[in-house]
Amino acid sequence: MKFNDVLENLTNYEAGKPIELVVREFGVKEKDVLKLASNENPMGTSKKVQKALKKAAAHAHLYPDDSMFELKDALSSKYKIKPENIIIGSGSDQVIEFALHAKTNSKNAILVAGTTFAMYEIYAKHTGAKIYKTQSKQHDLDEFSKIYKEKKDEISVIFLCIPNNPLGECLDRKDVYKFIQSIDKDVLVIIDGAYNEFATFKDSKKEIKPKDLLDKFSNVLYLGTFSKIYGLGGMRIGYGIASEQIIKALSKLRAPFNVTTPSLVAALEVLKDEKFVEDTLKNNLKEMKKYEKFAKKNGLEFIPSYTNFITFLFKKQDSSEICDKLLRQGIILRNLKGYGMNAIRITIGLPKDNQRVLKALKELL
Amino acid sequence: MKFNDVLENLTNYEAGKPIELVVREFGVKEKDVLKLASNENPMGTSKKVQKALKKAAAHAHLYPDDSMFELKDALSSKYKIKPENIIIGSGSDQVIEFALHAKTNSKNAILVAGTTFAMYEIYAKHTGAKIYKTQSKQHDLDEFSKIYKEKKDEISVIFLCIPNNPLGECLDRKDVYKFIQSIDKDVLVIIDGAYNEFATFKDSKKEIKPKDLLDKFSNVLYLGTFSKIYGLGGMRIGYGIASEQIIKALSKLRAPFNVTTPSLVAALEVLKDEKFVEDTLKNNLKEMKKYEKFAKKNGLEFIPSYTNFITFLFKKQDSSEICDKLLRQGIILRNLKGYGMNAIRITIGLPKDNQRVLKALKELL
Repeated sequence: MKFNDVLENLTNYEAGKPIELVVREFGVKEKDVLKLASNENPMGTSKKVQKALKKAAAHAHLYPDDSMFELKDALSSKYKIKPENIIIGSGSDQVIEFALHAKTNSKNAILVAGTTFAMYEIYAKHTGAKIYKTQSKQHDLDEFSKIYKEKKDEISVIFLCIPNNPLGECLDRKDVYKFIQSIDKDVLVIIDGAYNEFATFKDSKKEIKPKDLLDKFSNVLYLGTFSKIYGLGGMRIGYGIASEQIIKALSKLRAPFNVTTPSLVAALEVLKDEKFVEDTLKNNLKEMKKYEKFAKKNGLEFIPSYTNFITFLFKKQDSSEICDKLLRQGIILRNLKGYGMNAIRITIGLPKDNQRVLKALKELL
Repeated sequence: MKFNDVLENLTNYEAGKPIELVVREFGVKEKDVLKLASNENPMGTSKKVQKALKKAAAHAHLYPDDSMFELKDALSSKYKIKPENIIIGSGSDQVIEFALHAKTNSKNAILVAGTTFAMYEIYAKHTGAKIYKTQSKQHDLDEFSKIYKEKKDEISVIFLCIPNNPLGECLDRKDVYKFIQSIDKDVLVIIDGAYNEFATFKDSKKEIKPKDLLDKFSNVLYLGTFSKIYGLGGMRIGYGIASEQIIKALSKLRAPFNVTTPSLVAALEVLKDEKFVEDTLKNNLKEMKKYEKFAKKNGLEFIPSYTNFITFLFKKQDSSEICDKLLRQGIILRNLKGYGMNAIRITIGLPKDNQRVLKALKELL
């Protein structure tokens, strides 16, 4: 059977190995598996969310409220914007998909950093669009500007991942705003703020406020997620914030019931759990320092991180070998070989988790 | 901002009104709202599923096992097929989306029954494809054949909804097989079996066996869902079964983590709850007869149904008016005016629910 041409250029996203797989493949006991590969929240699921999910268990047979009225209302209050400026996705991933299906096609292109979230490229390829990347792996706005000017006729979407996944670096807000000002109003600039809460906690110059974006620009889409700071990676829920015109266009591509009933319940509940968020931020910043100290002490290069993970760059050792050896001990980290880097991304865990990782890593250096 | 041309022809799917909306808009107390509009399972959520979901509540922060190993394994056993013949979607809706993005584009077309599941058309339009519909609202295979022959150069996907939603009629298996045999192997025939369990229980001639399809045809995609007989409408999970070649192509369009962790848990659990399924089928068939009897007694036309709903066709009354009046009493049914019919689709409920609906309806005739 023949399929559409675009399928020929598609590859699947390689996700972090799930715990279940390590149990199956390496016979490690489930309780001994430590997964610090997917930037999940090491504090676990908020207790308040757990309670709400248990209560919601009896309503799994009912379709979700597709208006998502309550969650949009809560997000409006949080960000001081209108519900009409919000779209909810099955993860912010899905909002990326909507945006690219709305703007890109085989005749235009996207512009992204040299090494950034893989789904930008994958979804763009679904539409047949071309991908332009900066030569520098990390975000370099001068290079973004240069390529943009050269390929102005083609570029219809620009992604800025602030802070950047999987590297961890973060642009300053003022530079981002200045850059957006230089971009044509018909080009959609997507600010992926999946980890922005972590950056903001470390350095207020990194904070991107969706309301600011709405007030200043008609062509910006801000992405937020419940998968990271809010600890709902398993629930697949995130959101996009933009002008009403953009939200209306994206909504045309949103299938009904794209988010599950328990996901809506969980997201609504975790927004109320401020202590959970605060504890997560504090643990992250404190524990991150241990990794930095370890790297310095052992002569490892690392990228100063504004996220809940840190990326170690290897010279002597091979990142694939290290990841493989750790995997057999039940420690799952993210090898960045697939991104063309001899590097490992490690999610910051709880104190005992980090101790275990650093001890195991030390033995392999 | 300009968007891709296809967006101009898109409209959103109108879902059944959620309970929350009736509570908000008409001030009906939540406990008094009766929703028989979305073909949800009136038996509620399986007790076994509820227990499993409560247990899973503590793991909402962990990304799902994207290999979906366990669920594919369970479905393989159920249908006596290989895991490689299965793709899991966020509802079978999403598998429809994958299939259309894989096969259709602005240069080809789909063929569907005059009145059938609206998402076929909506997703096809996302790709810019043309839509051919039979003149008869219900499935008429002669008409399908006629149009197929006339538009052979264009048609790349054919949908058969067996039984049909939102009308309820059902083709016989032998006629379906004969029809597929007459179709070119490069055309994808999609058999939507969302309600097939109900049809099979009523009349074994209607049973479509995915294994038969795999053995006989290389160009068929069977769709199943956990939203109906399995009572997991809120969990957004369904599946597609086809040749490995088709599954591989569709998998390229599947985003990672398209199904939530609790949805995988729930689906796996409900497959084990045979009693829940049996009770659902028995209640449905028994209660359906009350609606048929009511229709005959009151001179209402109806379509003999092989599903968990029944469609009443009105002559004297206006379906919109009736639905509106019932809504104010807290009864939500599905008005089919949007499908160009003066008709109402009613999900078969529990005995007390059906009694309430028929009593209220009687007063409006």
